[in-house]
Parts: sequence; C-alpha cells; structure tokens
Amino acid sequence: MPVPHRVVVLGGGFGGLYAAQSLRTAPVEVTLVDRRNYHLFQPLLYQVATGSLSPGDIAAPLRAVLGRQQNARVLLDEVQDLDPAAQRVVLADGSALAYDALIVATGCQGNYFSHTDWQRWAPDLKSVEEATEVRHKILYAFEAAERLCASAPDCPWLTFVIVGGGPTGLELAGALAEIARETLRRDFRAIRPEDARILLLDGSPRVLPAFPPDLSLKAEQALRRLGVQVRTGAHVVDIDGDGVTLKTPGGTERVPAKTVLWAGGVQPTPFGRALAQRTGVATDRGGRLQVQPDLTLPGYPSIYVVGDLACALGPDGQPLPGLAPVAMQEGAYAAQAIVRRLQGASPLPAFRYRDRGTMAVIGRAAAVANLHGFHLSGFPAWLLWLFVHLMYLVQFQSRVLVFIQWGFQYLTFSRGARLITGSAPSDLPTPRVAPAEASPTASSARRDQEN
Amino acid sequence: MPVPHRVVVLGGGFGGLYAAQSLRTAPVEVTLVDRRNYHLFQPLLYQVATGSLSPGDIAAPLRAVLGRQQNARVLLDEVQDLDPAAQRVVLADGSALAYDALIVATGCQGNYFSHTDWQRWAPDLKSVEEATEVRHKILYAFEAAERLCASAPDCPWLTFVIVGGGPTGLELAGALAEIARETLRRDFRAIRPEDARILLLDGSPRVLPAFPPDLSLKAEQALRRLGVQVRTGAHVVDIDGDGVTLKTPGGTERVPAKTVLWAGGVQPTPFGRALAQRTGVATDRGGRLQVQPDLTLPGYPSIYVVGDLACALGPDGQPLPGLAPVAMQEGAYAAQAIVRRLQGASPLPAFRYRDRGTMAVIGRAAAVANLHGFHLSGFPAWLLWLFVHLMYLVQFQSRVLVFIQWGFQYLTFSRGARLITGSAPSDLPTPRVAPAEASPTASSARRDQEN
Repeated sequence: MPVPHRVVVLGGGFGGLYAAQSLRTAPVEVTLVDRRNYHLFQPLLYQVATGSLSPGDIAAPLRAVLGRQQNARVLLDEVQDLDPAAQRVVLADGSALAYDALIVATGCQGNYFSHTDWQRWAPDLKSVEEATEVRHKILYAFEAAERLCASAPDCPWLTFVIVGGGPTGLELAGALAEIARETLRRDFRAIRPEDARILLLDGSPRVLPAFPPDLSLKAEQALRRLGVQVRTGAHVVDIDGDGVTLKTPGGTERVPAKTVLWAGGVQPTPFGRALAQRTGVATDRGGRLQVQPDLTLPGYPSIYVVGDLACALGPDGQPLPGLAPVAMQEGAYAAQAIVRRLQGASPLPAFRYRDRGTMAVIGRAAAVANLHGFHLSGFPAWLLWLFVHLMYLVQFQSRVLVFIQWGFQYLTFSRGARLITGSAPSDLPTPRVAPAEASPTASSARRDQEN
Repeated sequence: MPVPHRVVVLGGGFGGLYAAQSLRTAPVEVTLVDRRNYHLFQPLLYQVATGSLSPGDIAAPLRAVLGRQQNARVLLDEVQDLDPAAQRVVLADGSALAYDALIVATGCQGNYFSHTDWQRWAPDLKSVEEATEVRHKILYAFEAAERLCASAPDCPWLTFVIVGGGPTGLELAGALAEIARETLRRDFRAIRPEDARILLLDGSPRVLPAFPPDLSLKAEQALRRLGVQVRTGAHVVDIDGDGVTLKTPGGTERVPAKTVLWAGGVQPTPFGRALAQRTGVATDRGGRLQVQPDLTLPGYPSIYVVGDLACALGPDGQPLPGLAPVAMQEGAYAAQAIVRRLQGASPLPAFRYRDRGTMAVIGRAAAVANLHGFHLSGFPAWLLWLFVHLMYLVQFQSRVLVFIQWGFQYLTFSRGARLITGSAPSDLPTPRVAPAEASPTASSARRDQEN
C-alpha cells in the first residue's frame, strides 16, 4: 500500500476551507491547521462590530464543517515557520508537520504601514475579538457622550472617524449612521445620538476606488443621504487617543474624535512574511506573494498560496483583489491541481478567476454592484447583496437565522447584539465627570418638545 | 412645582429592571445604574457557556428596554459606596448620586468561601465574560484531548468536574454530556468525545437539595442516563490546575481533571458587603441582607433591597431562594411601596412571594418541576421549562429567535455558537506535545469500524 499523500492546509478561511472541502473524495490525507476553531464569514464582521449580529451567527466550527469528511482532520494550532527543503511546517507548540503538498491560506491582517502605534487607537476589523472591541468602542462612546456632551455640539465622543473608503469603510460608516439615527434614537436623555458626526476619510480622489466612477458617486451620494461626511483626498498623518490629523490639499487639519476605526488596507500575517523570506519569493506593494499562474511559488511546485496572501494576476494582467470569491476559487483550483498531479495527469491550465461581480453595501436598501460592466445601485443592488451573502452563509450550518434577524431589524431598526462585553479596550479613556446631581427633567423636557 | 422624587435603582438584573419598569407611570425620576449596558437573562447563561446560544441572544440593552420610559434614565457606572445619612451613593468615577428612595438590586457572584484561589481553576457562571471563558475551557479541552489523549483512557483533558448539584450544576452537566455524546460526535479523529467523563459533585446527600426528594431522584436518574457520574456527599477540599481533591465518607480522593466548573453557591457583590457595613444590617450565612417585611433595611425606610442580595422570608418563615421570579416580584413591590408612600397612602401589606413553582432542566426532554407539591419530570417538565423561559425572553426584545435556534438544535443536536474566542483563560495550560508526523489513517480506520 502506498504512503498516503499528505496535504497540509494552513488557514480555515475561504481559501483554505474550500481547498480542504474540494479534496473530499481525493486519495489524500488533509490536515487543516488554524489557530481558531471556527471558519469566520469575514464579509459580515462589520455587522458584529455594529451590534447587528452575534459572533456565533457568522462563524461555523471547522470541525463541524469537516466532521463528515473522513480524509480530513483539524489541528488547532498556529503555524510559525516553514522548512521547504524538508517539506515541513513548524507549529507554535514546536512540533513539525510534514507535507507532500502545502496550501497556504493564512490571509491578511490590518496594515498600518509604518504607524503600528495607530492600531492602539484605531482598531482594525479582521477577527471576532477586534469586532467586539470595535462594538465596545462605539457603544461606549455614546455612553460617555451621555455624561459629557450634553451641551457640547462638537463633542469628540460623538465624532466617529473611519479611515479607508473601501467596502469595509463604507459598511462601517453606513451602519454607524443607522445606529446613531435610528437604533439609539430613543435611548439617551442628555444627548441626541443623531447629532453624531460620522466622517469617512480616504486618500484617493473618490470612495470605492476599485469600482467604476459612476458607482463611486452613487455610493458617496448614499452615504451623504445617511448623514455621513465623506472626505476624499484626505491623508491621515497622525492618530492618537483624542483624534486624527489630516493632510488635505488645503493644509493640515485636526479632527478631535474619541472613536477612530481602521479600514485602511491589509498586509500578510507574520507567517506570510516568513514564507516570503524562506522561499525568496517576490512580494507586491501590499506584501502579497507573487505566485505562478498555477498558484504555486516559483521554484516550489508543491507549495500553493491562495486567498488574500496570494498576488495572482487576472486576465488583464492586474492583480486579483482580496475577495472571498477569489479565495474560494483559488482554493478549489489548488486542490484540483494536487489531485491531477497525484494521478499523473497533465497539469491544469493556468488559474483563471471567474468574476461574477463585486459589491459594496452602504446601509438599508443602499448598495452598489458592478456585474461585468452592468452597474446596479440602490435597492436592487442591496437585494442582490442580501441574496448573495445569505446564499454563502446558508452553505455553512443553518445560518438561516441571520436572515430572520435581518428581516426583523429591517422592520424595526433594532439591533439585538448591542453588548459592551469584555474589559474596556486598554486605552479607552474613562469619562471622569458625571452629572452628579443632575436631574433628567431638563433633557426629557427637551425631548418632549421633539415628539 | 415640587422637586421631583428621585428613585435610584442599583442594578439592571431581574429585580432592578422590574422595579424601574414598575415606576413607569409614577411621578418620579428613575435613574438605573449598572456597570453593564444590558440586562442579562442569567438563567440561560449556561447555554452560552455550552455553545448553544450567543451572548446577544440572552441580553437586552438596558437603554432599549427603558428607551420609551420618559421618566427613566440609564447610567453606565458601578456603584462603590453609600452615604445613608446624606442619602447618596458614590459611583466608580467618584461622583455622587442623591436619592429620595433607593432600590438596591446588585445581586450576587460566585462564592468560593475561603478558597478564593479556586476561582482561577474553576470559573463561575455569573457574567457573559465568565460564560465565554467556560465555553473556551470546555471546547479547548476537547482540542487538547485530540492531541494528547489518543491512547489514554482516563485522560484529564477528557474529565470534566462540576462542583455543585443545584440547578446550574445540573444544567451544565446535562449540556456537557450532550456536547460530548452528540454535538462533537463526528468532529474528532484521535479521540471519541463520548468517552469524556463528566462528574457532578455535591456535599449534600442528594442533588437539588432544595427540591422534594422524589424530584432529586428523578433528576439524578436523568443525569445517569446521560452518562453523568453523580457523586453526592463529596466535599471538595482542593482545586488546582490538574484536578480536584475530595473528602468522601470513604476518605480522601484525587480526581485528575483539566476542566473544573464552579456552581457551588453565591455571595453578595462587593457593594452588597459595603451596604451591610454602612447600615449595620445583619446578614445570613450566605451574606444576604436581612430585610424588613416591606423589603427596607431596618432603620433605613428609604432603602429597599431586592433580588439575590435580599434575605426576605417566605410565609413559612424560611428565606426565599435566589430566583428570578422572587427578584421580579420584590422589584415590583418596592416600586409600589415607593409610590404609595409618595401619595401619602397607607403602606402596603408585607411583601409576600407568589410561588408559581420551581424547575431545573437536565437536558433534552429532561427536567423536573415542583408546582406547589405537584411534581413533574421528564418530557412534560421540559416542555414547561421551555415555555416559561421563552415567555420571559419574549418580554424583552424579539428573543423569539432563541426559540427557532432551540428548535433547530433539538432536531440536529448541532450547537452553532461553539467559538473559542478571546485570549485563553490565563491559566489554561497549553498542550506541548503534538502528533507531529502522525497520520490520521489509523484513527479514521477506527472510526470506519464504528459506522
């Protein structure tokens, strides 16, 4: 009996999980390594950060997903290093794992460029922990404002800055606007949450720079309708606990803000960088590894890189974007290529991404979609977004619940998962003044006039 | 215009929230202080700890619950101290809050008696954070077992000890048994989760000592059917990172176990103790404050104590148990008493608890209920439990989702919220051995034989 062919998959995101699942019937032994015990549906992480969904709603335990796949096992561990000569990866507990074929799908994390200290003030949105931290920050800001901002129109606790005008930045800005204007409407006595100032910053001349200009414009209009202030051509030069400093064509500007959120680009996780070093493979500006047309690393035919970590080229010679469908198709391709080689069949033709379109959602009934030059916006684009995301979710577990939750929220504007949990993000300042003997009468009188 | 009557409510649990809501139409100003921004449906916290529900499913934002109540405001803060002479409470940020009437509903936390160091090894189940820590511990134990326990029958990673045979202990034991025997059945390759040993310990001669003996017996039988080992008359004398030491009638015994969970009794939170000191009010053995028949503290007619912190007496002269219905009725009573006094009407008759029965759930289709001497067990008791808990949940927000989630889980045994999140509980040992080059073939062959 021949030695079984050992395929090690690093990472249980879209790329890694699809690779493992595509090997279901192959005569191989699959070991999926992830430091988390769950697959995370990252495109909806912003809904956790804004209190619409619970982490459990957008995560599926990896063991459950792969439970019935008899040729696969899951290892809860973090990969640290690679020994390409010996065909082994080194795990965090010091043990080594040998492979005959390796699929690297370790993905990316937030990129603060040279300003790693900004992460402290402006959390990123890549993990469940970061999402609950962001949720904490947002909800806590309104709590602090209730105590400190009663008579301060431009209160920094009520100013929210989102850095980055890509899809994630737009999703966050739109959700924040809805929280302030609808969800929390009746919840406070001293402040009006709808007075919150939400600022979306991007260095590019327009939001969604990867989309066609007409959709960028539609998206910007939708944001403005929600009350979001869009500032394009604005470069962030500093972030600290009290706000953001911008460089605009007009000069330098300081925006006092207690809540700054980062949606400003990604870079490979540490193992991705280690892999580039060990193999000497070139990286692009974002640190992604330049792979061959068959997604292997040049000189390492048994190492495939898929997903956000890979810089694969599209038919137009441009790098493919870091999107879930790209990762899934790459993962499935790598799996097929391994099987073909094992069978001694002729190699697969070069990987080719089937682009079914890209979308970005801004808020309720507001989205943009680019489907091969066919542009959608507004309610139809939003319906399409909803449908596509639900279909993906339903594939894993019974995430049909999310649908019911959304339906309910669409009708009521309520957000059920508005929990401030965990200890405060370490650097969250505590408001030190309280309305000691203050009476709620004054503010409730003001509210009465509104009704 | 007279100065408004200021009612300060400390704590947004069942007692405090019901008190605040009962004051809805009263000519008073209500300030509800809680260090959390949500009301937590604590009786279902064990379902978060065992991966059935997400924290967001059993929590309702306090501001949302009280949003439309114009005479109420919510303060996110922690109460530190009381100045009864000046009628003020002192908050964590140093500010003071004056009251004309005070309702204290700060509740209880886990009681480790003199062994506070045990908390480190055996977490309690009173907050969302503790529940996710317990979830982490349980799921991580199976992950570690997969690596370390392949050929170890009595592996400490697969031994789970629950200290305390009250309702919470039974719920945890039953849920753990179902996780091991059903939910994780197909998920592992090197271990059989159904081999997990689940031990329920109690010092009393029977589980559920507060229930009639026939129901204790039924509960114990249900636990045994689920494979739980019940050890009554077993006193815990030590807990550390590797297990539990017991004193039984037969002598001292050591149980090696990596997962120990605490369900062994409660004590007042620090403010409850401060309140007892400041007012000199006597406490019972569990530290609860001995209140007057009208729930005020002796000598302090404007301070009401309700819920788990109060030791109120039932019609039989026995202290009332720390249950949600008791807290709710006490909260509503305190609110009424304040209104009556404000109106100058004759005082209310002494508080009298309307006991509609008590229940404990063991697992799927297994529960016991004591309804005024009418005893239910098995499936009918479980249906009743389900109905009562859903009715309570539906009162807050649209927690109808929980119903759908449960229905789904009942049919499939799956648990959607099986996330290992956050950093590991600080003292969780990391397994240091991994099956480096181990092949999954051996164990999958074994599994094949089972099917």
